[in-house]
Amino acid sequence: MTDAADQSSTPDHLEAITQALNSGMFVHVRRMLQQMRPGDVAWLLESSPAPSRKVLWQLIDPDDYGEILEELSEEVRDGIIRLMAPEKLAVALEDMESDDLAYVLRDLPEQLFNQVLTEMDEQDRHRAELALSYPEDTAGSLMNTEFISLRPDVTIEVVLRYLRLHNELPEGTDTLYVVDQHNRLLGDISLASLVVQSPTTTVAEAMDTTVEAIPLTMSDTEVANLFERHDWLSAPVVDEQNQLLGRITIDDVVDIIREEGEHSMMGMAKMDDDEDTFAPVLVSARRRSFWLAINLGSALVAASVSNMFEATLSQLATLAILMTIVPSMGGIAGNQTLALVIRGMAVGHISDSNARWLLTKEALVGLFNGMLWALAISVVVGLWKGSWEIGLVIAAAMFINLSVAGLAGASIPIIMKRFNIDPALAGSMALTTITDTVGLLSFLGLATLILLH
Amino acid sequence: MTDAADQSSTPDHLEAITQALNSGMFVHVRRMLQQMRPGDVAWLLESSPAPSRKVLWQLIDPDDYGEILEELSEEVRDGIIRLMAPEKLAVALEDMESDDLAYVLRDLPEQLFNQVLTEMDEQDRHRAELALSYPEDTAGSLMNTEFISLRPDVTIEVVLRYLRLHNELPEGTDTLYVVDQHNRLLGDISLASLVVQSPTTTVAEAMDTTVEAIPLTMSDTEVANLFERHDWLSAPVVDEQNQLLGRITIDDVVDIIREEGEHSMMGMAKMDDDEDTFAPVLVSARRRSFWLAINLGSALVAASVSNMFEATLSQLATLAILMTIVPSMGGIAGNQTLALVIRGMAVGHISDSNARWLLTKEALVGLFNGMLWALAISVVVGLWKGSWEIGLVIAAAMFINLSVAGLAGASIPIIMKRFNIDPALAGSMALTTITDTVGLLSFLGLATLILLH
Repeated sequence: MTDAADQSSTPDHLEAITQALNSGMFVHVRRMLQQMRPGDVAWLLESSPAPSRKVLWQLIDPDDYGEILEELSEEVRDGIIRLMAPEKLAVALEDMESDDLAYVLRDLPEQLFNQVLTEMDEQDRHRAELALSYPEDTAGSLMNTEFISLRPDVTIEVVLRYLRLHNELPEGTDTLYVVDQHNRLLGDISLASLVVQSPTTTVAEAMDTTVEAIPLTMSDTEVANLFERHDWLSAPVVDEQNQLLGRITIDDVVDIIREEGEHSMMGMAKMDDDEDTFAPVLVSARRRSFWLAINLGSALVAASVSNMFEATLSQLATLAILMTIVPSMGGIAGNQTLALVIRGMAVGHISDSNARWLLTKEALVGLFNGMLWALAISVVVGLWKGSWEIGLVIAAAMFINLSVAGLAGASIPIIMKRFNIDPALAGSMALTTITDTVGLLSFLGLATLILLH
Repeated sequence: MTDAADQSSTPDHLEAITQALNSGMFVHVRRMLQQMRPGDVAWLLESSPAPSRKVLWQLIDPDDYGEILEELSEEVRDGIIRLMAPEKLAVALEDMESDDLAYVLRDLPEQLFNQVLTEMDEQDRHRAELALSYPEDTAGSLMNTEFISLRPDVTIEVVLRYLRLHNELPEGTDTLYVVDQHNRLLGDISLASLVVQSPTTTVAEAMDTTVEAIPLTMSDTEVANLFERHDWLSAPVVDEQNQLLGRITIDDVVDIIREEGEHSMMGMAKMDDDEDTFAPVLVSARRRSFWLAINLGSALVAASVSNMFEATLSQLATLAILMTIVPSMGGIAGNQTLALVIRGMAVGHISDSNARWLLTKEALVGLFNGMLWALAISVVVGLWKGSWEIGLVIAAAMFINLSVAGLAGASIPIIMKRFNIDPALAGSMALTTITDTVGLLSFLGLATLILLH
């Protein structure tokens, strides 16, 4: 994170292409693009303002379209697909692995989706429909169905001879799977283990039978956690009868982990994590208005709380000056707890058995922080405003608000999860509304009771 | 993210072990732990409150200590290392890959570090010192030095015979490297490609010479971006003379991507991303006080801004009620832009060539949002407070603050990066201070000028 700016090779690349593009040296740009890998071209498109993308796309060799589309982020890809004729799109999608194919197709507008499916040849259409039949965000939608399976009774020598019949193995192959005659998974054998085996060993002797297969319906988050915890490069996917249906490879898992991280970060900042960095102004402004509208609502709730104390405020303007401090501290303290719990949930650390422990702990952190910062603010306000009475009032409000913030920060994500609401998105706004309301109510309420009797 | 709660198998595991632990069935727990993989045991420790960890650790087979320590997050590992005698720790560390070894050693307190190094045998100590000689967060510190290299002139058959001399290949081997007599990298050959080659082919014929080697000094963020962009499973690391020194494997890259995501998310919420979810109360409270103190400072800056308008506020209490709305909207809009730019920097999308375009775009989004929400708030306030004059004042302040928020949100991370400050940590606090100050100054200032003339 701290040194993303010193990207050595690639920004130079970007610089050079941008310059060539701006000076209209299209032949030169075309040649440069041909020498780049699909991942780099995708990165270049994502790093370019929307108008340049159109020009760049026309300079790319159509044979590379499929591989590049596969690597693009959702919103950028959607923009580019809109530039393509359905029949060209169908051709571009043909070479994709089945999981990526489903991933792209799922996002197409219905009319284009049908057109593309019609343009595909029978085999690809069948593959696409199968991939689309699994729910999004499950192991089924992540797996690809190209893999090599072996029978247990053959020798390693036979396996090697069989492999040599291929020009190349399916992309990302690091492990071969061993199945019985009903295609039920018996074990696996990694290529690293295959190449150290004596040729006369049988697959049954060489295979690892402790392989953990992933059920079709497992959520993608859990798949990612398993890969991470066990340092897997790939894993087999099976149905309820333990029949081998496909495999999931680490490259897709890396994408999930990246997306999850971005989702939580952007969610905390009330941003749509699909938003393209270089989208046009109006598109960006529209995407952000949802949370700005919600926040306006939340700010009006806070204003209506202080509106209840108009009489108090007009008698003592000092209260108006100080009234933003307690809500602000409550917002920060509550968001700290919220982030901790959201992270813990994402990596699967939090379950029924430890949720109560965590809730108690965070409530205690809130109480402790409440005491600490109540003391601090009473001293500051006492010295600044020369009134220890106001100091006492703000201290009491701080203590109440930080205690509530700890409890709310820990319980909001746990409750939201129960109701299937995503706490990374909605959590911090709900929390801030609570800490603003409680902060203002307790500060202005106590001030009215104590100072204006 | 949305479905982290439905982790099926592992929380059951956690539940069962927690119950067994609470009922004192230690023999049973010990047996369960023996059947778990190191990654799962590490996950169990991380999911357990601090007191249970101590008991669990004593029930784990000491032979597994090294592999488990390798998988633990920093703060949890530090807590456990404090429970271990230096000589036991030295034994536990012996089996680690060199990059993980350096990673653990680097965090030890100096005295323990020296004790552990003394306890190690010569070869391990040498390996550790070499790994420690590379700066943290660079390719050098990520690489491990166990790999298999080949000469170009041998045949595949000879390679296979050579590989069979091994019991197993170094962990995570998916590719073999081809070097000349000076150990300079010539190319590589993946195991997937090796097994489809005819035995009489030479390595020189079969190898891929387009392999992109990673320089020793490349930052870990950039390494992660390259892996992600090219779907690599591993990559060779070379020095300036193109000599092969080691390789980086995807499992370490996955950890970097996970950590980066957590760092940005936790940073936005003003949390230390090392904080252990199940740390003791006082440890947690202390860790959080830094940002609470900074925020208190920021809140006091805002209070001192409104303090300048004490006379205005005492004349018109309605202003006090409305004055939190404009800063709040500015904070959200600015943080949206900030998050977008931080994400763009993290994945390397933002460079000198497009920074200006982005800055202009975000400033325009700010202007546009400013107009939109100025209109909205003036209508709301005009209707609520029955004063179109106040509505006009708040509209003008909203327009000013949202325009500033867009500009500040885009430029703060770019400027901070120049000065090597981490925007994910410090950015949102700097931004909020700006939007609070500008929001209050413009609202109360305009109100003083226009309403109280």
